[in-house]
Amino acid sequence: MAAEIVNPPSGSAEGAERLDAGADSAPTEPFDPAFALHRGGKMAVQATVPVRNKDDLSLAYTPGVAKVCSAIAEQPELVHDYTWKSQVVAVVTDGTAVLGLGDIGPEASLPVMEGKAILFKQFGGVDAVPIALATTDTDEIVETVVRLAPSFGGVNLEDISAPRCFEIERRLQERLDIPVFHDDQHGTAVVTLAALRNAAKLTGRTLGELRAVISGAGAAGVAIAKFLLEAGLGDVAVADRKGIVSRDREDLNPVKRELAGLTNKAGLSGSLESALAGADVFIGVSGGTVPEAAVASMAPGAFVFAMANPTPEIHPDIAHKYAAVVATGRSDFPNQINNVLAFPGIFAGALQVRASRITEGMKIAAARALADVVGDELAPDRVIPSPFDERVAPAVTAAVAAAARAEGVARR
Amino acid sequence: MAAEIVNPPSGSAEGAERLDAGADSAPTEPFDPAFALHRGGKMAVQATVPVRNKDDLSLAYTPGVAKVCSAIAEQPELVHDYTWKSQVVAVVTDGTAVLGLGDIGPEASLPVMEGKAILFKQFGGVDAVPIALATTDTDEIVETVVRLAPSFGGVNLEDISAPRCFEIERRLQERLDIPVFHDDQHGTAVVTLAALRNAAKLTGRTLGELRAVISGAGAAGVAIAKFLLEAGLGDVAVADRKGIVSRDREDLNPVKRELAGLTNKAGLSGSLESALAGADVFIGVSGGTVPEAAVASMAPGAFVFAMANPTPEIHPDIAHKYAAVVATGRSDFPNQINNVLAFPGIFAGALQVRASRITEGMKIAAARALADVVGDELAPDRVIPSPFDERVAPAVTAAVAAAARAEGVARR
Repeated sequence: MAAEIVNPPSGSAEGAERLDAGADSAPTEPFDPAFALHRGGKMAVQATVPVRNKDDLSLAYTPGVAKVCSAIAEQPELVHDYTWKSQVVAVVTDGTAVLGLGDIGPEASLPVMEGKAILFKQFGGVDAVPIALATTDTDEIVETVVRLAPSFGGVNLEDISAPRCFEIERRLQERLDIPVFHDDQHGTAVVTLAALRNAAKLTGRTLGELRAVISGAGAAGVAIAKFLLEAGLGDVAVADRKGIVSRDREDLNPVKRELAGLTNKAGLSGSLESALAGADVFIGVSGGTVPEAAVASMAPGAFVFAMANPTPEIHPDIAHKYAAVVATGRSDFPNQINNVLAFPGIFAGALQVRASRITEGMKIAAARALADVVGDELAPDRVIPSPFDERVAPAVTAAVAAAARAEGVARR
Repeated sequence: MAAEIVNPPSGSAEGAERLDAGADSAPTEPFDPAFALHRGGKMAVQATVPVRNKDDLSLAYTPGVAKVCSAIAEQPELVHDYTWKSQVVAVVTDGTAVLGLGDIGPEASLPVMEGKAILFKQFGGVDAVPIALATTDTDEIVETVVRLAPSFGGVNLEDISAPRCFEIERRLQERLDIPVFHDDQHGTAVVTLAALRNAAKLTGRTLGELRAVISGAGAAGVAIAKFLLEAGLGDVAVADRKGIVSRDREDLNPVKRELAGLTNKAGLSGSLESALAGADVFIGVSGGTVPEAAVASMAPGAFVFAMANPTPEIHPDIAHKYAAVVATGRSDFPNQINNVLAFPGIFAGALQVRASRITEGMKIAAARALADVVGDELAPDRVIPSPFDERVAPAVTAAVAAAARAEGVARR
């Protein structure tokens, strides 16, 4: 078993260190820089007030803390002022749809949740805590998160498989007065819309004249389809493994049935490939590959966003032969559609104004702000900023906070 | 309402700052240094690995993190090596028994839970996360914590009212393979035993020849009684509001009925005051006051541990007239019985060896180590170390880790 998880040194293995696992430690210490980096986890808690002496202790703990507790008991909204609640997000998963790995369980999902937590901090200044749950039951997940909610200012749902993720998010949004946001859906949708806005601008088109085909009807595909229609896209068709989701299919679950009613005005049916003929936009969130002939059949000046990781549905070299703008989910090609461009700023903005939820208007504002960061640098290989562009999070934060106020969901 | 929570500047008010609450902020900003200190909360999350550029991101997040997730999915015990699980404790409450304030609810309890979390960090190097639950139902609390457990290396139950706290702890210990520890019970008991050992040593007595009376049959009183008997105390009687808990009482809940069977070998009944006649030890964890005549009736060379906060059951000035050793729960008198002497080291030791639970032997080892820190400095006003004595946490940690190994609950 050990041999299966040992990875040969990669190109960046110079940075790796051979950790001394010690006689009483785990028997395998794979030689890979990712393992060395993850040793002991990637995050910690720190005190932001001093606890050096008796006086400090009597303010931060008893007896001083009792006055603060009593004040919150009398005026509940003071919890936002005098605790970390309004700056901390629970990153909640059940470990059922982790990266491309699938249902690997809560413990094995923790490295991703910790990664998410440190990205929240690094990019948005938002504290975040991994909460990987030992249940995959929809009712139990909802009840558990409702019970946790007093401690948190927001809930980022993560890597929960479809279709349960839709119901879990909806029910939590109904029951809680803090933002609940399934990033695999909406983070991806926001960044996709931002890239699409800039691609349209670059090629002198409006969103309304574009017809898109989405490969994948999971969390990301469904959310992107709905969000692009909300934002004014001309038409969107979504394909799952059995082809285009259309009203005449009888094998659809409730989520896809709703999708069939909202999308595909053109009334397409059949394969993804056939739907691509004459389409303006391809959006891949599925894995799988699209034959070159289908790409060639798209409309002139098409956009190809092949976001599967690590293998894009259409390799950029092929896509560039036919498309005006090409984006992927990978950091080693231009135009990376990366959720980290959205979720830190979206939560930072929502928490800043203590928004009770994250509305469609706030997400659209986030996408617009993200697109606008590119500004004069707009080019075919630059329709979306780099994740390390320091202008991104402040721009998204400000836009989301302003939209929350405009939409009446801000509480300060 | 604002006036009720405004406190006049106290003796240490020089350190206070008048915060600019801002026009859109909470309407009340009480002038008290505790409020200024609590503004924005007392804790934060930090990344312990760099996320400065694309290479960092590809190790700490995708694609590098996927290898670590897959490794844990194949060998579940690796979660302890490659995530923060084994160094992070959930500080879980339902807000029903917060300090002396009682049932103030989860949000109002958060300042205490944050305080606890930063004490874990400061004194034990243990990361801790406040989890204040929106339920007071025993079954729901148990289920919720079981579902949270994959993310944490231990569970510190806090400020949950008796008698639910006993059942919640027992059921969680049965279901989880990580330490579950109700600090209001066992932390208090460990520190009390440490002080009692040193008091006995100082006055040349053995634990076996001491008869103690405990005022208070809540979480702390019940746990102290059981623990002192476990440690070899001669006899212990516990009083609740209706008097001494004895076998002939018919108004006892199941917890007190069990207590009646374990304690009070002398077969006392009636009032706390009458039970004190000839007693060697008074332990107060109740509030209320004990008349001086009852203190005067205790055996010569008695120990008075009057731990109610902020008002000890017996004022130290009174106690000193009759007792050989006097301790309180307050930082402004000598011999402060403070849980912070125990819980950081107990969890640090348990986590260090990945103990599956915290046994009686580990708690007794903690008490012994804590008592031994005093060493040659032993004196009537020094039967317990200061919370700021830097020798305490390392000594308790080492003793608890060694005891876990000796008792076979260590997993490394």
